[in-house]
Order: sequence, then C-alpha cells, then structure tokens
Amino acid sequence: MSESTALLGNTSRINGIFRNRKLHKILLAILTVVLITLYSYEESLPPSSGHHKSQKKNLIFFVTDGMGPASLSLTRSFRQLTQDLPIDDILELDHHLIGSSRTRSSDSLITDSAAGATAFSCALKSYNGAIGVSPLRNPCGTILEAAKFKGYMTGLVVTTRITDATPAAFSSHADYRIQEDLIALHQIGEYPLGRMVDLIIGGGRSHYTSRVRKDGRDLLHESTQNGWQVVQNRKEFDTLQLGTNVSLPLLALIAENDVPFDIDRDPKVYPSLEEQALTAIKALSEATKDSDEGFFLLIEGSRIDHAGHQNDPAAQVREVLAFDKAFKAVLDFAEQSEVETVLISTSDHETGGLVTARQVTESYPDYIWLPEVLANSSHSGEYLKSLIYNFKGTKTEKTKFVKHDIMENHLGITDYSEDEINSLVSENDQNKIQDLINIMVSFRAQVGWTTHGHSAVDVNIYAYSNRRDRWHDVLDHLQGNHENIEIGQYMAKYLDLDLTAITELVKDTNHSPGATIAEFEKSHDTYGHKLN
Amino acid sequence: MSESTALLGNTSRINGIFRNRKLHKILLAILTVVLITLYSYEESLPPSSGHHKSQKKNLIFFVTDGMGPASLSLTRSFRQLTQDLPIDDILELDHHLIGSSRTRSSDSLITDSAAGATAFSCALKSYNGAIGVSPLRNPCGTILEAAKFKGYMTGLVVTTRITDATPAAFSSHADYRIQEDLIALHQIGEYPLGRMVDLIIGGGRSHYTSRVRKDGRDLLHESTQNGWQVVQNRKEFDTLQLGTNVSLPLLALIAENDVPFDIDRDPKVYPSLEEQALTAIKALSEATKDSDEGFFLLIEGSRIDHAGHQNDPAAQVREVLAFDKAFKAVLDFAEQSEVETVLISTSDHETGGLVTARQVTESYPDYIWLPEVLANSSHSGEYLKSLIYNFKGTKTEKTKFVKHDIMENHLGITDYSEDEINSLVSENDQNKIQDLINIMVSFRAQVGWTTHGHSAVDVNIYAYSNRRDRWHDVLDHLQGNHENIEIGQYMAKYLDLDLTAITELVKDTNHSPGATIAEFEKSHDTYGHKLN
Repeated sequence: MSESTALLGNTSRINGIFRNRKLHKILLAILTVVLITLYSYEESLPPSSGHHKSQKKNLIFFVTDGMGPASLSLTRSFRQLTQDLPIDDILELDHHLIGSSRTRSSDSLITDSAAGATAFSCALKSYNGAIGVSPLRNPCGTILEAAKFKGYMTGLVVTTRITDATPAAFSSHADYRIQEDLIALHQIGEYPLGRMVDLIIGGGRSHYTSRVRKDGRDLLHESTQNGWQVVQNRKEFDTLQLGTNVSLPLLALIAENDVPFDIDRDPKVYPSLEEQALTAIKALSEATKDSDEGFFLLIEGSRIDHAGHQNDPAAQVREVLAFDKAFKAVLDFAEQSEVETVLISTSDHETGGLVTARQVTESYPDYIWLPEVLANSSHSGEYLKSLIYNFKGTKTEKTKFVKHDIMENHLGITDYSEDEINSLVSENDQNKIQDLINIMVSFRAQVGWTTHGHSAVDVNIYAYSNRRDRWHDVLDHLQGNHENIEIGQYMAKYLDLDLTAITELVKDTNHSPGATIAEFEKSHDTYGHKLN
Repeated sequence: MSESTALLGNTSRINGIFRNRKLHKILLAILTVVLITLYSYEESLPPSSGHHKSQKKNLIFFVTDGMGPASLSLTRSFRQLTQDLPIDDILELDHHLIGSSRTRSSDSLITDSAAGATAFSCALKSYNGAIGVSPLRNPCGTILEAAKFKGYMTGLVVTTRITDATPAAFSSHADYRIQEDLIALHQIGEYPLGRMVDLIIGGGRSHYTSRVRKDGRDLLHESTQNGWQVVQNRKEFDTLQLGTNVSLPLLALIAENDVPFDIDRDPKVYPSLEEQALTAIKALSEATKDSDEGFFLLIEGSRIDHAGHQNDPAAQVREVLAFDKAFKAVLDFAEQSEVETVLISTSDHETGGLVTARQVTESYPDYIWLPEVLANSSHSGEYLKSLIYNFKGTKTEKTKFVKHDIMENHLGITDYSEDEINSLVSENDQNKIQDLINIMVSFRAQVGWTTHGHSAVDVNIYAYSNRRDRWHDVLDHLQGNHENIEIGQYMAKYLDLDLTAITELVKDTNHSPGATIAEFEKSHDTYGHKLN
C-alpha cells in the first residue's frame, strides 16, 4: 500500500472496500463528479478582491527579421566556441521553440518584410511591399491599433529605422514600404486614429527630419511640441534610466538610420537591444501599473536580416546573440511580473539562403564548418568596407593597410591571396568591397549563402507565458506548423481585439503615393524603389 | 448557478456553505486529496483481465535521411502547383511537427548518416562513420536489439541498400560504415546476439551476394536455408499481398543497390515506399497479434539524401512526397490499431545545403522561386545522365538527342544555350553530366545548393500517438529543440528498454576491419573510403 493510501486510515474494513474493484470504481466515479461540480461552481463564484487584476495582460511580440533555421546552429556553435561551453549548450530562444511558420505572401512564394509584418499585424496575407494594407490596397486595422483602442499601452523597439517595414506595418498604412515620410506621420498620429503608439525606441531619425523629408517638416520638433519626450542620443537615452524615468509618449530615435551591427556597436554611443528592450518594458509596466489593461510591445532584432542580405556570418552571429540576450532579459522580467504576460518570437522570413556548410573544393567536401573564423572577425564587412573605401594614401600604402589592418588585425585572416588583396585595393564600388570581404570570411568559415535576397524556408516560432493556463492556450494555437497569419490571429484572440472594427476606422487613411497607383507602379519595382 | 451545481441539490444550507469561499476551498482541498489517493491506490491494484493487453506497444521510427527544413517549403509549393491545391495546403508530416533536433556528431559540427543513426539507435553521440559503436569503438546496444530481447518483433524498411548507414546502425556494429559485408552478416544473425531482425524490406542485395562479397558467400541462399523467406523482385514482393501473406523472418531485397528515385521508379518493377511500409506493418501486426509485446519498425525515406547529394530538386520533391504518402499510410493504420502505437519521424541531418531561393542575377534578386520547373522534369539527373552517357551515335545525333529528348521532352527546358548543350555532349564523366543537368534545373527553378555534402542545420521532429496520454508523454519529452540522442533516449524509455544490458551482450562482436585500426585509418578517409 502506498504512503498516500495510508493517510486514509489503515483499517481492514476500508481496505476491504478498496480491494473490491467494482465498489472502488463506483466510489471513484461519485467523488469525481462531486469534485468537478465543486470546481465548476467555484468558477461561477463572483471574483474575490484582486481577481480582476489577474485578467490584465501584456503581450510582447518579438521579430527576428531574416533569421532562418540555419542561424541557430551557426550561432550556437559560435557561442560554444567563444565562451567555452559544452557542445549541447543552447540559446535562450532554443528553450522556447514551439513550432514553425510558413511565410509566403499573397503574391509570391518568397515574402518581403512588409508583407511578412502585415501578416502579423493585420493577420492577413498581403503583397510584397504592403504596409498595413490588404491585397486590394485597403488599410487594415492592426494589433497595435486595436490594442491601443482597448486601453493597452503600445510600443515599438527596433534596431533599424523605425519607418522600416516591420514597425511600420504595426503603426501605419502605406501601399509601398518606401513611403517612409508618410509612415512617420502615421506613427506620430497624423491619420484618422490619432496617436496610437506610446513608445518608440529605434533608429531612423532621417524620415523625421527636414533633411530627408520631401515636405521639409521637422517631426522631431513637432513631436516635442505635441508632448512627446524626444531622445536622440546615448546621453539622452541614459537619462531614461532603463525605463524608470520615462515620460510617455516617448520618441527615442538613437540613430540617423540603422543602429550599427552589434559587432561594430560602440556602447558609449549606442545602447544595446537589451537596454532598449528593458527600457521599454519598464516604462510600459510603470505606465500601466494602475490600469485595467497592460501593454503590447513589438521588439525586433532588425539587422539579423541585414547581415543576411550582406552575406556576413560574423555580423549575423553577434546580431542573433544580441537578440537572444534581449529576449532573455524580457523573459526574466515576465517571470517576475504579476501581470499575465505572453512572449511570442518569430521571423518574417529567412534572408541570404544561409547554410552552415559550403563546399570549397571540387572534390567531395569534408563535413565541417569553422566557427573560429567568425570568432576572429572583430568587425562586419559593412564597417570594414568603409575603412577601405575611405582610405587615403598611395596604392602601396593601401595594400599594406588592407593586408595588415583589415586582414590580419580585424579579420584574423593570414592566408589571403595576392588576388584577393588586389581586388580589394582596386575596387571602387563600396558594395563590391563589402561583398569581397564577406565572401572571404564565409569561404574560410565554410558557410554558404545562395542569395542577397530572401528565401522561402519555414521560420521558427518561440513562446512563453508566466501563466500555466495561458501557456497551454498558446500551445493549443501555435504549437506545430502554421501560416504566419495564424500568429497575428492568435495575438488578436489573446488580447480579445476586433481588427475588423479598426479596419473600418482606418479606411480613409491616406495610404497611396501622390501619383495614381498605376503611374507609380509603372515607374517603381515590386518594393516601390524608383526604376531607372 | 451552473447546471452541474444544481445536481448537488439546491438547498439554501448547501448554497450557504458554498458561498463561504474559505469553507469551499477547504472542502475542495480535502476531496482532491481523497480522489488522488483513490486513483493512486487503483494504480497499485493488480491488473484486471484485458488490462495487460492495453500495455502492448508498437513503435515506428521514421528517418527522412537528408531532409532539412527547406525541403518542406520546396515540396509543399511543388505539390500545390501540380495538384492545384490552395496556398496553405500542407503535407501530412506538417500536421505532426513537434520540435527540432540538433544533429552534430561527437567529432564534427556536421554529422554523417552513420553517426546520425547511431545517435538514434544507441542514444549516444559517436563519430562520423560509426555504425552502432561508441566514440571509443565499442559496440553499443541498439533500440532494435533491446526491443527484440524484450519480446518485440523488429523490422527495417528502406529505399537504399539495407547495409547502408541508417538501417545498419540499428542492426549491426562496425567501426566504419563501408564494412557492408560485415554489416550484412550481423543483420542475418551472425554475431553474439543471433538473429535480431524479423523483417527486412529494401534495396542492397549486393552485399548479400557472392558477386560483391569479399568472402564469396551467398547470404541469400544461406538465409533461405536458415528459414528466411527471401524476396528479390516485384513479382515475389506481390506474393506477400501487402503483408497478409508473409512468413517471418522476411528478407526482401528488391534492388541490387538503391531502389530508383520515385520520379524514375517503374511501379511494375519496384514497389513504392508506401507499399513497403504497409507490407511491414501488416506483417508485424499479424505476427504480434497474440503476443504481449508489439513491434519496433524503422522506415527510412533513404534517398531524399541522395537527391540532396546530387543537388537534384526535381528528384527530391518526389522523394519527400513518396515518404509523406508512406507516413500517411502508416498513420492511418495506427489510427485504426487497437495496440498503443507511437510514430516518431525525424532526419539525421540536412543534405546539399538546399535553399528555396537562388540569386541568378548580378543585380538584386526578385523574391521568387519557380516550382513549375521541377514539375516539368520527368526524370532525375541520375537517370538522364545515363541516357546521355550511354548514347550511341555521331556528335550531331547526340546533340539532337540532348536538345530534343533530354531538354525538351524530359526536362521541359527550351531556353537552353548552345554552351550548355555543348558541355553535356562533350562531357565524358558521368558525375559531371549529372551535375550539369541538375544545375540547369536548379538554376531555372531558382533553387540554391551550397554543397554536395551535409549541413549543420537543425532538422524537424514529427510525432503521433493513438493514445492521448502517450501523446502528452511524447510532447513532454520531444516537444521543442533537442539533441538527436534524446530521440533515442525517448524510444528506449517508451519501450522500457535497457540499452546498457545489451551493450554488455554485444561487446565481443566482431566490429573492426580485418587490419589493425591504425593501418586501416592510414589508408582510408573519415567515412572509411579507401584512399588512392
């Protein structure tokens, strides 16, 4: 007899009843019914004090832009090597894998980031280039807008321009992603819904300034006048004290365009994604601490995608690690939070066709790739190409500079060929210099790429909740293989949002380019870039 | 008050108790303890009649050799196009995704199939080339052997040679995967454990025949004499009547080496993987229908890997579809089975560095790949290269043949260049002819590859059980991201196997090459291939 049975009282009479299997089963059945009844009765009882507070919800949605499945094995092995970790050491993200997402857009097997983000924000498939608009180019209500309407606070945290596709698709409506001047206007509230975003931390001052805007407006100045706290550099960012000293709405644009890659980032000049994220969740938590509703926050590891486009594996592993660190920091926060919180993290698509294997011989390849080559790189191709491009001196001096400073010091490459050096020294196209550097690194690391664009592979879905019931609810909806729009659908369901109602409210938003669409399309490519 | 509460009796006195939240909680707690106690007591009761039968288990383990994440989007889009299915149509496998597996071996970031299969069969990481042996080259007890020892029936179903790495690692012990003569001996029971395999269906007659074996033995003849039912062709396979007319042990070797790619397979000559799988589960189910234990069966989509090595996307999508069909057929069988059954499907690694995107221009690529190119291919590069290589005729006749028969008729390619044709016509190396064909198809489909070898990307884990409790048990152990050995560990746990005990029994197995290992290694590469 087990210990727990003994608690019931060890008399032979009771044992006799228990030994009678039929009687035992009947007893079990009756007690089960009684218990279920009592539990369901409890659910119908009026809430005790504090019960209402437990309905409050936070949703933090992470996007690893351009991170496909191969980025994970790449980054894990790099981290194991550089931090001397065991071969089964994994990233924080890896602990939270629940499924994968199919990413195609309405008009292509391979999505761009605009259609990818609109699948999340509006929970619908749209065309490549679409920012918060349907395939018929009608503005669609977004998760962020609907959450704000319901009383949630809202935020956007990115490392690229805040007017770029992913944050734009949550906070604006534009037929083409390049309409970044228009996107900035929506973001500060100049559209039918008024201001929907409470917190912005990212790069991309450019389309907020008269230097770049076609209409010559200075949105930073206007925002200050309209009550935004505007932050433009590290010093001002530090006054936010990681979110404990923030006045919302906050417009923190800490770089003119992109925040530098983490491998190149000077922490004295630019905060990390982790610092950005911590500032956001602290500020939003404080701002909602007495509210019935929590907050919706988007956090994007934006430049994993850029490392993919540039085929730069040394930059990519640091971008993934920086994101993983930010994810962990938010997770720790959520674990401590008394507010029900859900974290969902996924990618819009893969970028670069990254493969953790590259055949570098005519003969059959060894089964190997070499993370130590990435560990030896101290800067991205993007950073080093500028050094080479801007070098002032004779050809001999430049050759020496490329060999010693770039190759040996910055990349740890000593087996360079004269051909490689000559190409780098004589090349005058910045992009080609960057490509040459990234090929040298990738080739030696035996890391493969098949494109400078995107690919169609499924991307991973990660999730967490600090409430057991909610965790099971997340698994019920997102465990396994899903269309990307199902992630948007679940976010709307979780926050109990009515996106259709918001779509009705944004229908008169100015979303199309100034010229007629037909004329615009004749002179622009799929993504809205002006054709020559 | 809910309906169920009413069942308790709607008197004001009881309601009074229930309205007292504290009293209600205490009552709930007491009843919960009582119920848990009664349930745990029931578990300790002796089984009632028929109870034992419900403990019977089947385990079917699927390996998609060389199938990485990109194979899925590739195959789905191909199927949607060719079968006119909606853009969110998915494979049967996709419905059962539960996680992903990290694949590195003990001695490399990129595994081969031998170490990959040993991770599953012995639940330990070993070196590339290892067949059921530890990193120190000691034979390790396998899932198949331990299951057989416990009274399970066992089977192996593959489309490559049965002496190849994956099936070998479950049914034999060899320091190097190329010791296929030795592997065949173990498979028919010539090692300390005696015969462990009850059913074999696959290719690879070669190492069972005196034509190929160094020792000149005819294992097919010997097996017949030792009571095996030996099957060598489609006609004999058909007498098995999809498993209803099988005498175990069965040795069905339906091809000299590989069964042809599904895209090339003549169904009059070779059964499909689905037919092989159905035959196996029917025969094993019948053979175990009166036993206390069920069966362990390995089913491998072996040649997804070969299409990857050859960089042949047209062959690969058909291999994945053939596997998916076999998986579905087994799943249907399991759904109907009265025996508790678990299906687990995963890959040992990815092959080829497949990417569903390939930049084919200097300028920035369109976001697109073209499944219609694969749909137009009626044969693999492997098949077509033989036609070209074996063509008899003048150069003019050969050029005409390559243009019209190979390009236009078999591949649906009409935009070939004269350079492409000339290369094909003048090339005398069969492998190079094959590469030229596969590059032409991949380039036009805008499908990328980075190697003819393997890559390090995580691979998917799929699972199913026909019992709800078991399904949750599978999820508890394999949901999310795992080392490949954890899959082996779960299989052993599920069947309640003691692999260590079997390791003790196989320790005296002849597993090393005839020469001393040091001499052997000096003259062979990592995989045991003889060096020139």
